[in-house]
Amino acid sequence: MKKHSHYGHIIKSRVSSALWQAILDRCERTGETPDYVIQSALANELDIRHHTLFQVSTSTALVQGIYNGCMTVAEIKKHGNFGLGTFDSLDGEGIMLDGEVWHAKSDGSLALAGEDELAPFWATTNFIPQASHILSSVSGWGDLCQQIDRLRKSQNIFTSICIKGIFKHIQYRVACRTEQGTDLVSATNHQAVFDLSDCSGTLVGFWTPEYARTLNVPGYHLHLLSDDRKFGGHVLGLSATNLELMLAEESDFKIALPESAEFLQADLSIDPSEALAKAEGAK
Amino acid sequence: MKKHSHYGHIIKSRVSSALWQAILDRCERTGETPDYVIQSALANELDIRHHTLFQVSTSTALVQGIYNGCMTVAEIKKHGNFGLGTFDSLDGEGIMLDGEVWHAKSDGSLALAGEDELAPFWATTNFIPQASHILSSVSGWGDLCQQIDRLRKSQNIFTSICIKGIFKHIQYRVACRTEQGTDLVSATNHQAVFDLSDCSGTLVGFWTPEYARTLNVPGYHLHLLSDDRKFGGHVLGLSATNLELMLAEESDFKIALPESAEFLQADLSIDPSEALAKAEGAK
Repeated sequence: MKKHSHYGHIIKSRVSSALWQAILDRCERTGETPDYVIQSALANELDIRHHTLFQVSTSTALVQGIYNGCMTVAEIKKHGNFGLGTFDSLDGEGIMLDGEVWHAKSDGSLALAGEDELAPFWATTNFIPQASHILSSVSGWGDLCQQIDRLRKSQNIFTSICIKGIFKHIQYRVACRTEQGTDLVSATNHQAVFDLSDCSGTLVGFWTPEYARTLNVPGYHLHLLSDDRKFGGHVLGLSATNLELMLAEESDFKIALPESAEFLQADLSIDPSEALAKAEGAK
Repeated sequence: MKKHSHYGHIIKSRVSSALWQAILDRCERTGETPDYVIQSALANELDIRHHTLFQVSTSTALVQGIYNGCMTVAEIKKHGNFGLGTFDSLDGEGIMLDGEVWHAKSDGSLALAGEDELAPFWATTNFIPQASHILSSVSGWGDLCQQIDRLRKSQNIFTSICIKGIFKHIQYRVACRTEQGTDLVSATNHQAVFDLSDCSGTLVGFWTPEYARTLNVPGYHLHLLSDDRKFGGHVLGLSATNLELMLAEESDFKIALPESAEFLQADLSIDPSEALAKAEGAK
């Protein structure tokens, strides 16, 4: 499988006849060599060349109550090591950091998610910070958003956000297991809300451009994972000093659409902005 | 590079140290074998497993006059063999069929596009029809849309469309080379419009869900390529009998966002629907 050399490595691998034929077809079409196809496929897959944000389903589907899990944790991990989402039946909040996926439940518990747990919505990337900043003082959610706004270069590029530090106060919610078809606003009306003081942890999440509001949550969306791995959830508010902020622009955006009857038949033509603001923000 | 065997093929390829390290990192994270990573990367890249619609830039960026080409024809071909788009400076219409990219210009000419020509907007897929139908009679654009509406399974899945036959009448436009920053409605106010009778050809294009209206042209978007490779452009109207219609649902959707200053600074928060309807429909 592996052979070292002075310049790179030789990979040797068995592929199916269909796959080999596909490689040859592509070479014929584009004039590339099989070597080039293999290398670019691996580079694309492993996100060396591009910053890709990979997403399962859409925020509008979630607003409309499409909570049936459609992709396993194991499959999602192939597309990134960092991100957030929720689980089958809107059962809690998902936090992905350093390739581990954590499952926060509305009873306040936190555990590693099983490889075969299903997600109805998830966003993930291979997080490679491009910029790092210290936020000396953050007085609240709005203040945090404004400070990051000043550091982002564009309103038109998805941005991954990682924030590390000690949160003097942090408020987060964990969605409760909900029946399929209950809209997200109703579902999060009876969410569990938690407050912590002096919590050492990491916030993981994304900033999504307004033009993608039907696909992902527009603006800032962050989930907490405490350093002691005891607490986690969807951040509603916070105050802190000396936070370390890391940002990465994601210029490629990929969506996998569910092929379930619920998704295919849903009314996704609505503008979900108002519902998302209600469901994802502080009450 | 290639060795036959009774079950598949052995590929042998040199990759960079960074790429090999990325393979090992992924294996460690997911528990997969390098063989599996290599095979799944190739399968993903070559779209064997999934129907992926790949897109360069967004329809809103086009509406806002972002016409600077940002991806070469050669690069686009790696993502599909079928699709449509436009060229640098909105110079004409692009039609991709069977892996060839054709460039229609506003003087009525049609030629194969150069590998290094640039596109500011393009959508492509590896077209694998999932359904085939005969449309015995089509009286106009609206009638065509209604007939395909009845054959599509969902309002929420991107659909690739290929239509072959003889068009009793077909009207199409070709956009004129335009200065960067001129909005699309103004730019297409002085487009070249052509009418053909008894034209044998193929229509290639897509149906895009309403919820993706800020990203791609919502509804039906078809470009003509005549069988004699003399004519091509953006279809405005048609009438025909006995058309062969092929459809493919694309459940994965991938966007590459331009990283140009023009794109990063554009106001993409608008709803482009009205402008797209004006710019892309019959006048």
